[in-house]
Parts: sequence; C-alpha cells; structure tokens
Amino acid sequence: MTQTRRERLRETTFAEIKSVARQQMAEQGTAAISLRAIASQMGMAAPSLYNYYKSRDDLITALLIEAFNSLADTLETASLAIPTKNGGEKLFAAYLAYRDWALRNSTDFSLITGSPIPGYHAPENITTPAAKRIMGLFQLLWREACSQNQFIIPAEYTEIPDGLRQQLEAWKEFEGNYLPPAVLHLLLASWAQAQGMVSLELYGQLRNNLKEPFEFYQFEIRSLLKRVGLSVQNN
Amino acid sequence: MTQTRRERLRETTFAEIKSVARQQMAEQGTAAISLRAIASQMGMAAPSLYNYYKSRDDLITALLIEAFNSLADTLETASLAIPTKNGGEKLFAAYLAYRDWALRNSTDFSLITGSPIPGYHAPENITTPAAKRIMGLFQLLWREACSQNQFIIPAEYTEIPDGLRQQLEAWKEFEGNYLPPAVLHLLLASWAQAQGMVSLELYGQLRNNLKEPFEFYQFEIRSLLKRVGLSVQNN
Repeated sequence: MTQTRRERLRETTFAEIKSVARQQMAEQGTAAISLRAIASQMGMAAPSLYNYYKSRDDLITALLIEAFNSLADTLETASLAIPTKNGGEKLFAAYLAYRDWALRNSTDFSLITGSPIPGYHAPENITTPAAKRIMGLFQLLWREACSQNQFIIPAEYTEIPDGLRQQLEAWKEFEGNYLPPAVLHLLLASWAQAQGMVSLELYGQLRNNLKEPFEFYQFEIRSLLKRVGLSVQNN
Repeated sequence: MTQTRRERLRETTFAEIKSVARQQMAEQGTAAISLRAIASQMGMAAPSLYNYYKSRDDLITALLIEAFNSLADTLETASLAIPTKNGGEKLFAAYLAYRDWALRNSTDFSLITGSPIPGYHAPENITTPAAKRIMGLFQLLWREACSQNQFIIPAEYTEIPDGLRQQLEAWKEFEGNYLPPAVLHLLLASWAQAQGMVSLELYGQLRNNLKEPFEFYQFEIRSLLKRVGLSVQNN
C-alpha cells in the first residue's frame, strides 16, 4: 500500500521524536525524558508534539517496545539463523549477541534493564508481549539444548527446594511452557549472569580489574554451557 | 573532642543535604540531582548550599563514598562477625547481605551500580579506595574459602584461555593480591551473578516469572558455593 506524502512525513516525525528522545536520555539519563525538551530541540511547538504522543508515558512505552523488539530480533538472528543442530552453539551465539546489542545500544539497554523511570507505569498488556519475545526465545533455545544427548543437569541443581520448585512450576503452568524446573532455574540464573556481566562492563565497574571484559564474558558463558554438558567450538 | 554548636549545626546541614539529595534521586532518578532543587526543598538560598558542596559533582562524590562504605560495612558485619571457620558460610552471609542492602538502599544501589550520572566524572583517587573496600572484602572471603580442605576448582574453570589468564594475572600483580587466576575469575563471575539477580529483582524484571525471588537468589548462591565444594547449612 502506497503511503501518501502526509503519511510519510508523519512517520518521519515519529522516528525523529524517538531519535531525539534517545539522544536526550543518553546525555541526561533515561529519567530526564521530557516532551517539552524534545519539542524544543526539534524546533516544534510543544502542542504539536502531542499530536504524535499524547504523553511522556506513551513515548516511553513506544521506546520500550522498540528496544525489546530490537533486542529480540538481534537474538533471533544471531541464534536461529546459524546452521547447526548444536543447541550449545545457538545459546552461545544468543548470549554473545545479548552483550553486543547492549554495548551498541546502551541507552536502550538502560531503558529496559535499569532502574525504572520514576512515575512511569508500563501498560503491561502492551509491553509484556514485547518483553516476552526475549524470554520466549531463551525458552526455545534451552528446550533445544535440553534435547541434546549430552545435556546434563549439574549435581548442584538436582535438588531444588520446595518453595522455589513451586514457583518454577507455577511459572511453567502459567505460560504453558515445557521446561523442567531445574532448566527454568538455569535459564533465569544464566540470564542474570549475562545481565550482571554486561552491566558491570557497561557501567565501568570492571575497569579496575580487566582490560578486555569480553574475554571474561565469553569464558564464563562457555563454562556455564560446559557445566550442562554443552561444548562450544573455539570459533 | 566536643563540637561547638556551630559545628553541630554544620554537620546536621550536611546530613540533611544528602538526605534530600537521596530522596530526590529516588523520586526522579539519580541523574536528576540538582543543588538548586535541593536548596529549594530545604528552604535555603542556593548560594548558601555552595558553602557545603562546591558543585553537584562534589555532592555526588560524597553520596557515592557513603554508599560504598555503607555496603562495605554491611558486608563486613554480616560475614566477618559470624563465629565460624567455614568460608562457605561467610561467603553465603556476604552474598545475602549484598541483596538485602540493595533492596533496603535501592537509590544507593542504583547510584553505585547503575548507569553513570551523565556528565559526572568520579575523582578516582577519592572514590576508588571506597569501592575497593568491597572488592577487598570479597578477596579476603574467597581466600578463606580457598583454604578450606573441601574447596575445589570446578572442571570447567581449570583451563583459562591465555588472554583472560593474562588479564587476571595483571590484576593480581597490580593489587598484590594472592588468589590464583581461576579463583579471581570465580570471584568476578559470582559478583556478576549476584549483581544480575539483584538488579533483575529490584527493577521488576522477574515479576512475570517468580513471586519470591529471594528463594531463587538463595538457591543459586548455594549452588554456586556447592560447585566449589563449599556446603552451607539450611539456616
């Protein structure tokens, strides 16, 4: 369907608003987002901007959804596209892509994983499906990994305390997913591991310890996969 | 040494400025910190505030140092005070205290671990020693853990790639610490693990998965310690 000139201009303006918003968040922190400041930088009257986004929160929601989708697309491309049946390789590719995306899109990374913007309440019916694409992909990848012959549950994870097991079962039930509790735990724990390493690197906390945090990241992810029996080639 | 009334008043004002700063950061994000806004809330003329902190950055530095010291004190009290020779128990206590401190001091946690405040450059000769208290404590605890008979390096960590090994050796050299590279790696990786789990919990990212993230956190830390041969009592 061909767009009219008016529609094209409108789309361009939407894109410019989001781009200026990201730039201002990069310079002043995610919480500093302000429609008035964006309008001013664009040389636009503030009321005109409200024809595009009714409120600051609508704009934040749009940015969040773009960020979740951009990350999900990146992870999918990195992991699903590689021609292998080795579930370990796919998971490895996804974790490397996670770090890579975070470093290249640090504002979006802070937006989706950092401290929430004060006063903003995500409309969960809108943001949750986008966020779930990422979790859904990791579930798929861990499911593939589980189906490898060499996959093992490490000894330290075989006896999950009752309370945690019930929570993992409830999550499983709720989402209709098919991973055993120990694997759901491993999925969450390795997500936290990757998240922790990326944020320590990105926010400068490894500066006094490591010159090349990538080697640390890569070795830890490899070790994590080795622990569940999955080998990963040395590139 | 007895303080004069004038000195006591000055100390009280310092404390009030920091308290109002934390409150404003909690409400508007850490990057929103502004001496003008603090003065206004305190009913103080902005120029008077400059008699206390010469700049926004001086105030941020003071807050950072307080946060690092508060965390370090908490970790020390939790881990060193317990009457045990079991290095695993001490590490366990420290990791639990880390999460607990973060949840009770979420603004300070965001300040020291979140995205840096735009435009702020920490004077490293001042902030680094405070930050290093925390790392130093973990080095001490891991050293104690290593000296336990039952301590083992898990198989997946026995062969560290050359590049990473050199970085870990350089860090060891630089700080004059005494931990073997594999243990330094485990120290950083478990810090990232704890950091990742706490930030996922604190910033609401586990909301769709777990009702009680504490059980998840506790089990993962236990598993991590079990992996290196250290058992921890069930409370």
